[in-house]
Amino acid sequence: MARRKNKTYFKTEADAPAPITVSVKSRVRFSDVDPMGVAWHGRYPLYFEEGFAALGRLCGLSYTDFFHAKLMAPIVELHIDYFESLYLDEEFTIQASLVWHEGARINIEYRLIKANGALACSGYTVELLVERNGEPCMASPPLLNECRRRWKNGEFH
Amino acid sequence: MARRKNKTYFKTEADAPAPITVSVKSRVRFSDVDPMGVAWHGRYPLYFEEGFAALGRLCGLSYTDFFHAKLMAPIVELHIDYFESLYLDEEFTIQASLVWHEGARINIEYRLIKANGALACSGYTVELLVERNGEPCMASPPLLNECRRRWKNGEFH
Amino acid sequence: MARRKNKTYFKTEADAPAPITVSVKSRVRFSDVDPMGVAWHGRYPLYFEEGFAALGRLCGLSYTDFFHAKLMAPIVELHIDYFESLYLDEEFTIQASLVWHEGARINIEYRLIKANGALACSGYTVELLVERNGEPCMASPPLLNECRRRWKNGEFH
Amino acid sequence: MARRKNKTYFKTEADAPAPITVSVKSRVRFSDVDPMGVAWHGRYPLYFEEGFAALGRLCGLSYTDFFHAKLMAPIVELHIDYFESLYLDEEFTIQASLVWHEGARINIEYRLIKANGALACSGYTVELLVERNGEPCMASPPLLNECRRRWKNGEFH
Repeated sequence: MARRKNKTYFKTEADAPAPITVSVKSRVRFSDVDPMGVAWHGRYPLYFEEGFAALGRLCGLSYTDFFHAKLMAPIVELHIDYFESLYLDEEFTIQASLVWHEGARINIEYRLIKANGALACSGYTVELLVERNGEPCMASPPLLNECRRRWKNGEFH
Repeated sequence: MARRKNKTYFKTEADAPAPITVSVKSRVRFSDVDPMGVAWHGRYPLYFEEGFAALGRLCGLSYTDFFHAKLMAPIVELHIDYFESLYLDEEFTIQASLVWHEGARINIEYRLIKANGALACSGYTVELLVERNGEPCMASPPLLNECRRRWKNGEFH
Repeated sequence: MARRKNKTYFKTEADAPAPITVSVKSRVRFSDVDPMGVAWHGRYPLYFEEGFAALGRLCGLSYTDFFHAKLMAPIVELHIDYFESLYLDEEFTIQASLVWHEGARINIEYRLIKANGALACSGYTVELLVERNGEPCMASPPLLNECRRRWKNGEFH
Repeated sequence: MARRKNKTYFKTEADAPAPITVSVKSRVRFSDVDPMGVAWHGRYPLYFEEGFAALGRLCGLSYTDFFHAKLMAPIVELHIDYFESLYLDEEFTIQASLVWHEGARINIEYRLIKANGALACSGYTVELLVERNGEPCMASPPLLNECRRRWKNGEFH
């Protein structure tokens, strides 16, 4: 198994705007670690969530924004590649990057960076936009269009 | 600190019906344990919840029952006394006991019993009944009254 | 995005023994669900873990077995495809399948089946075998070889 | 049920040094909230833990300090009084206060303060000091004595 660390999970057009990336500092809690003293693999979605929420607040895609737009954005795909362990009490950085896509979906890539700069893990989530009645959005909704307009304007960088 | 293991947390009148107790088997998961190889103390509310849910299904006090009655029952008090550790993969028994009370509240006691019969932990929760608008119920609502009627009838034993 | 529900995540040789599958019943807990009343996507690794642990107990690959063999088996890759929501209190089935591989790794596929028979989710984990000092196992260790010997013998079906 | 909000859980001598209090900012995560949109009661031990860890780092009572001293400090008692809900995305403050005690135990009180200044919850934990072989410490160990010496010296205020 070739385990490439610099992988990009989503392909984008050459002329697509660069991803929007937020960084959040976090720390491995006692309740996160397993008998080996490292963060349990199933705790990483909680780490991703911290970056996800910060990204949403920056880009107008927070839970509240979705609520007011009468939309939901369920995660339909989650992937995590684990490279190095995170240890009890270790401070690390969560990077979440919104990757350009023009459909009714949200593609986000994640990277967890150890205190020493090494890549602990990378991964991605895919969300599909859904109306409140559960029907998938057939076209990209105004909430996403507005985000992309500001993105192209350079408002998030 | 005297650490009495046979403590009863709630006082009841001498003529009150005996508590209704359910037992649920569970097992300590890898994700529950800490670097010492024992269940982390903050995981115990999840164990209590398993007994709590089984008790609610038995007594007509499940989440669904509350929802249909347009009531909520937030937990306002939680207490846990830890006596012996629960180890990775250990099978244990969760006992949850509904204790008689005539007000708009629900008192439940919990006991976690180790595979060897020892008491791992005991504790309690107190819930207060609340209308959907957030106002406390001034009197015991029909949902609780019906539960007590069946309880006195011996339907749960 | 084509979202195939019957996907097999790992390729095996035509003459490889069929996967070993265990099924475990579980139920969506109150603490699992989000404001939409469905199991939060980040809780699914806990569901996978229940199948994972049952499979390990069956096949001689439990945490205890690894501990006694002085080996660790960190998860290096996790993938989840979400198809249908799991609702509060819903009973569902966790299927975990050990897929044949001859290297120092363990490939497991998961399927969560709703009460109505629909596929809620599928996914996989990859574990790499590691010595207690953190060095990767260069060859498949005796623990795995013994499992495969019994597997070929049909002892797990 | 009288629900006093200004309760002090531990009694101390009149001449005991004042508690050492740390404050940590946190935020209610999507994965913390239940179908009512408020933090689930069983998530509060995670909030307490954030204050607990910060207090330990300040006072020389971190997990690492205990590890090097060949001691463990299992929590033997946890109590939580819930007063007001914490909402999705709400920023709140965790206060953890180490309360003076001269025995081989650690008494900590917690208060969670809402964004609007209201008291969301209070509670406490009791830890007993234990040797690595599981035997209770009969006298207060050097680690605690050193903490108390610095405390009396005013090093933590």
